[in-house]
Amino acid sequence: MSSNSLGSKLVLTSFGESHGKCIGAVLDGCPAGLELDENDIQSMLDLRKPGQYSTSTTRKEEDLVSIVSGVFRGYTTGSPIAMIIWNKDTQSRDYDSLITKLRPGHSDYPASVKYKQFNDFRGGGRFSGRLTATYVLGGSIAKKLLKNTLDIETNSYTVQIGNIKIKNKPTHSMMKYIYSNEVRCPDQESVIDMVDEIKSAKKSGDSIGGIVESVTNNLPVGLGEPIFSSLESDLSKALYSIPSVKGIEFGSGFASSNKFGSQNNDEFAIQNDKIVTITNNSGGILGGLSIGMPIVIHIAFKPTSSINKTQNTIDIKTRMNTTINVKGRHDPCVVPRAPPVVDSLTSLTLADHALQGGFIRPVI
Amino acid sequence: MSSNSLGSKLVLTSFGESHGKCIGAVLDGCPAGLELDENDIQSMLDLRKPGQYSTSTTRKEEDLVSIVSGVFRGYTTGSPIAMIIWNKDTQSRDYDSLITKLRPGHSDYPASVKYKQFNDFRGGGRFSGRLTATYVLGGSIAKKLLKNTLDIETNSYTVQIGNIKIKNKPTHSMMKYIYSNEVRCPDQESVIDMVDEIKSAKKSGDSIGGIVESVTNNLPVGLGEPIFSSLESDLSKALYSIPSVKGIEFGSGFASSNKFGSQNNDEFAIQNDKIVTITNNSGGILGGLSIGMPIVIHIAFKPTSSINKTQNTIDIKTRMNTTINVKGRHDPCVVPRAPPVVDSLTSLTLADHALQGGFIRPVI
Amino acid sequence: MSSNSLGSKLVLTSFGESHGKCIGAVLDGCPAGLELDENDIQSMLDLRKPGQYSTSTTRKEEDLVSIVSGVFRGYTTGSPIAMIIWNKDTQSRDYDSLITKLRPGHSDYPASVKYKQFNDFRGGGRFSGRLTATYVLGGSIAKKLLKNTLDIETNSYTVQIGNIKIKNKPTHSMMKYIYSNEVRCPDQESVIDMVDEIKSAKKSGDSIGGIVESVTNNLPVGLGEPIFSSLESDLSKALYSIPSVKGIEFGSGFASSNKFGSQNNDEFAIQNDKIVTITNNSGGILGGLSIGMPIVIHIAFKPTSSINKTQNTIDIKTRMNTTINVKGRHDPCVVPRAPPVVDSLTSLTLADHALQGGFIRPVI
Amino acid sequence: MSSNSLGSKLVLTSFGESHGKCIGAVLDGCPAGLELDENDIQSMLDLRKPGQYSTSTTRKEEDLVSIVSGVFRGYTTGSPIAMIIWNKDTQSRDYDSLITKLRPGHSDYPASVKYKQFNDFRGGGRFSGRLTATYVLGGSIAKKLLKNTLDIETNSYTVQIGNIKIKNKPTHSMMKYIYSNEVRCPDQESVIDMVDEIKSAKKSGDSIGGIVESVTNNLPVGLGEPIFSSLESDLSKALYSIPSVKGIEFGSGFASSNKFGSQNNDEFAIQNDKIVTITNNSGGILGGLSIGMPIVIHIAFKPTSSINKTQNTIDIKTRMNTTINVKGRHDPCVVPRAPPVVDSLTSLTLADHALQGGFIRPVI
Repeated sequence: MSSNSLGSKLVLTSFGESHGKCIGAVLDGCPAGLELDENDIQSMLDLRKPGQYSTSTTRKEEDLVSIVSGVFRGYTTGSPIAMIIWNKDTQSRDYDSLITKLRPGHSDYPASVKYKQFNDFRGGGRFSGRLTATYVLGGSIAKKLLKNTLDIETNSYTVQIGNIKIKNKPTHSMMKYIYSNEVRCPDQESVIDMVDEIKSAKKSGDSIGGIVESVTNNLPVGLGEPIFSSLESDLSKALYSIPSVKGIEFGSGFASSNKFGSQNNDEFAIQNDKIVTITNNSGGILGGLSIGMPIVIHIAFKPTSSINKTQNTIDIKTRMNTTINVKGRHDPCVVPRAPPVVDSLTSLTLADHALQGGFIRPVI
Repeated sequence: MSSNSLGSKLVLTSFGESHGKCIGAVLDGCPAGLELDENDIQSMLDLRKPGQYSTSTTRKEEDLVSIVSGVFRGYTTGSPIAMIIWNKDTQSRDYDSLITKLRPGHSDYPASVKYKQFNDFRGGGRFSGRLTATYVLGGSIAKKLLKNTLDIETNSYTVQIGNIKIKNKPTHSMMKYIYSNEVRCPDQESVIDMVDEIKSAKKSGDSIGGIVESVTNNLPVGLGEPIFSSLESDLSKALYSIPSVKGIEFGSGFASSNKFGSQNNDEFAIQNDKIVTITNNSGGILGGLSIGMPIVIHIAFKPTSSINKTQNTIDIKTRMNTTINVKGRHDPCVVPRAPPVVDSLTSLTLADHALQGGFIRPVI
Repeated sequence: MSSNSLGSKLVLTSFGESHGKCIGAVLDGCPAGLELDENDIQSMLDLRKPGQYSTSTTRKEEDLVSIVSGVFRGYTTGSPIAMIIWNKDTQSRDYDSLITKLRPGHSDYPASVKYKQFNDFRGGGRFSGRLTATYVLGGSIAKKLLKNTLDIETNSYTVQIGNIKIKNKPTHSMMKYIYSNEVRCPDQESVIDMVDEIKSAKKSGDSIGGIVESVTNNLPVGLGEPIFSSLESDLSKALYSIPSVKGIEFGSGFASSNKFGSQNNDEFAIQNDKIVTITNNSGGILGGLSIGMPIVIHIAFKPTSSINKTQNTIDIKTRMNTTINVKGRHDPCVVPRAPPVVDSLTSLTLADHALQGGFIRPVI
Repeated sequence: MSSNSLGSKLVLTSFGESHGKCIGAVLDGCPAGLELDENDIQSMLDLRKPGQYSTSTTRKEEDLVSIVSGVFRGYTTGSPIAMIIWNKDTQSRDYDSLITKLRPGHSDYPASVKYKQFNDFRGGGRFSGRLTATYVLGGSIAKKLLKNTLDIETNSYTVQIGNIKIKNKPTHSMMKYIYSNEVRCPDQESVIDMVDEIKSAKKSGDSIGGIVESVTNNLPVGLGEPIFSSLESDLSKALYSIPSVKGIEFGSGFASSNKFGSQNNDEFAIQNDKIVTITNNSGGILGGLSIGMPIVIHIAFKPTSSINKTQNTIDIKTRMNTTINVKGRHDPCVVPRAPPVVDSLTSLTLADHALQGGFIRPVI
């Protein structure tokens, strides 16, 4: 399996570079018979688009997707769905001066060792956060597939920006507010503080991290595989492909480490003739398999590496100490742009497992 | 790729059941020319073996490994290395009464839905923690391969049991103490409190969780692949195949979410003519690639699901409410048995990437 | 994917060496619920067993299989099925003198270059025809799975030994005679001449090749995938893993190369309310997909490389010309032992596609 | 692994449809540092292009390739190389009338069963021979990679059209004539008869098959893997992905089946201080591994299925008998367009094995 492909039966292959001609993806293994056009993808891409708010990068990309294969008369055919986004606003000059000074927190150093002079460093090349748009290309289709066939729904949203944690526990009825604000927080009471946290970091030329929560409802029981393809294994593999992610936990996660079994175990009960657990510390997964309760994931994002402050570093050519101040156009906080990406990778992984487990048929 | 296999070029296939005839593994892709005999594997297996201390399960398994293929005249041949551990002490009767009552926190429920009446439920069958011994079969070889070819060294150890956190930050010189105590903590000052934490949980018929830290030194720069096979992606996929793991973070992890970029970025410097970072918040990974600094991972374990306390649950046959009290022989805390398993999965993943990246040759 | 594993959803991993402790296999991905015990496998293994007739090698191996995982209370569980055959009659001394003289037609030379001194050369090691028994381990299960779920039936048999071609075209009613004779030919009129052809080669210390035909009936329409996983692609990949196979064709195969389209096209018709083709030059495959007609494959075997005649060769150590006369115990013709192996690889490939295409469910 | 991807470390993913917007491919795993521009690919594409001669289809496609990712400053970067050919001359109306009448020899029938009404039947959709151009996209890069790093050279050419076999055995010095004639035959004495054979079939509204021979020189010893990834296994899997191929053999192939071992074995010798075999009945492969002798493959093509003659068939809607006469623009013989496709798939497979075996490094 190549490192630019994700999945086993539903396979997303990503291509393109931040400042190259385009970015794009091929989604292979999507069943025939899914109604699909560019709008299904575009609407989700738009939620991730840069340059939408005062708190985000000033790079303007329309991010218009073209489907170039795999769809016929408005339906998927079962053949690979190739999609392209042509790059428009590529100001490579912003980056040219950086070539030899290592940017702290960036991939410049290991990439230049690994690929030598052949690394496409423009705008981060293959390592750029811009590539997460290619995850949305496939993810938006996976999301629609899960919704149309099994009524599965994933919602991801911001629960922490820097030191500001969400004030009210998100409920299902709050989900409609996620994209009503620029920090993608479903709790309207928390929005202003979160925005301020980003603005304050930005004002001082700094950046800030945060946490995204992802909740998936209506999963059937038994999705996932034991041993090496547990839902936790495959979801975390997918989600760690987002640059800046440094922590992932399921259900009570790290907090379970200082709990007793009697506190952390979720007791079973029958509700409305359905088997449920009273609490959901498991995050909906036992033995690597779904149990029909919501899948709950927390994803921790580090602060953006590019900051407008002087940092010590070295020049890789001269191997001398120097300083750097990363200009260019960057998000002071990537978290608000992450929810559609998290939705995408979660949907791709769950759709892949639904196909593997026979929950979705080859023709729907 | 099947769900019982892990890796791309170095592939571990696990087989067997907790209370079946045996557990075992096939390691494929190991280079020819590695000196290897059973002792290399046995010594690491022994560190994971059950029944060694007052704080662990009373199940006694010698866990003796036989290498049955792939080694000739004391060296690996490049062919698959098959290894078997015959099960001895299988008291299935302990579990027979549990069949219809769902054990909270266990895989019984989703497994019985997924595999119907064909699920081998004895002792957890394929979902048992006992299967982690098969990870050690391959992991001990991967660890030796990394050591012999690239001088890479992984050390994993306990840093938290329940509410007891390690008192002194582990240093390299403390590594020799890891296996000198039953909780696998390199800080001798923390051992007694950790042991007490487990004993206290056990006395009340309860269980407790904890955190393992894993540190890998001497990695070359450039291991890993961008996009979907970042080191974080592949390490977390591997580590989440340990039952009870519910959280994984790299470097500053979740703590980075409320840091500023200026705090979290690691500045580059030259030390002893080598490029290093002054701090290691990245956990040794940038852009999914190794940077030559130690790989630092935290793995959170939930408390053992089996507890000797009355819990509410349902009977899956009658679909009526009932209660359960899980007897049988269980570890009140799995953390002390986890370090060799974490070492194994970390080594397998890094050796796989070292082979993929051409850092280790097909014949060594 | 490792080179010792075959398949995508139904994966066979082979291990072991000709003169090592054992040979064995792990079959992963078999659905839960298939009734299975050792007899199902043993009966097919017995058809391949060496030393049964005057025309085969004098090596005696009982080839007794043990299932060591994946079966519970007489049914498959959905977990990996590991199987072992312990080696008994290993006379490595026969081969010791050959180490430095390259045997014409054998893998000694490239294997010694590839694996250097670490190659397990005893009895051909990993390159031995004996390893085809591990294909039967998985293939016998795949064959039963196809029969029990879809009523699919594969029959493979000898149609040519040296210059002796089968005299009467095999019909379905002749299939019962395949294993009634030592050359595995369903046409009883051809048996004596074929046996004589082998005996005559053997008497002169020589060996002889032949052709096996494989016919699979009752396949549903639409098995297979376009582009790189056509039935032809995957069947030929599987079948070329038999040592000595040097040619594979489907339907009219090579003979179609000098036919007109109007001769080679199979016209469609309705028979018994079923869509059929009047002829079957396609061998049951169009566009890489099954069409419901019999899958017909011809597999060409070269004569056994080991012959009791003086051949020119070189000594790899001295790099001098020399001669060799390969003693040891060998089949003068491998064709009669091939049919169960061909059945096995065909069944594994078709069962894999049946699972991929959703024709067989995860629990049967 | 998805069915639209080929390879293990060097992976080609094909997308697009015959009469859709485009056809294209992503080549992943190509080392960084290969000098590459569109001309490298275009020159090989041009050799396959339709409409070049009187004997081929009248469909005119310029088949202009664009590289849209993975190349920076004239060199490959190690990232996926995406390539697109926009379709121009798509006369779908030629095919519209065929929808319900099954064309003998075509994939219409199984495709319509497998994908139901969602199948893109226009021009054969995903099953069209046009898709072989996507193999050339990747294959031309693989060919250059093999040449630049290991000096490996593949030449494929026509050795039989219908009943006309090549008159003079092809020698290395004849290779320069392959593309000097429209049947791609290196033997200038055979060209006229082969052209006549095609013209004669065409004149009667019929089609004709043939055989391509592929020879690869300068391979190092030890490429390939034992058991399931023998060179024969992987080359045949790749080559059977060409529509119309129904037979593949290596070296003496089917002819070896009636040879004695003493005739078919290739004796070893030293020539110019190099180990060689005197004859090459093995086709350069022993035990699935390369031995340094030329890899020789024969590929049998059936006659084109589309013929301008009345054939019996059925209407899939009415399920009644009917007749069909396939108009549209078709090659009366696909063989002359096959050599660059055979070169491509051979090169892709050998480059993949060269990368897997460490013969080519990740940065060249």
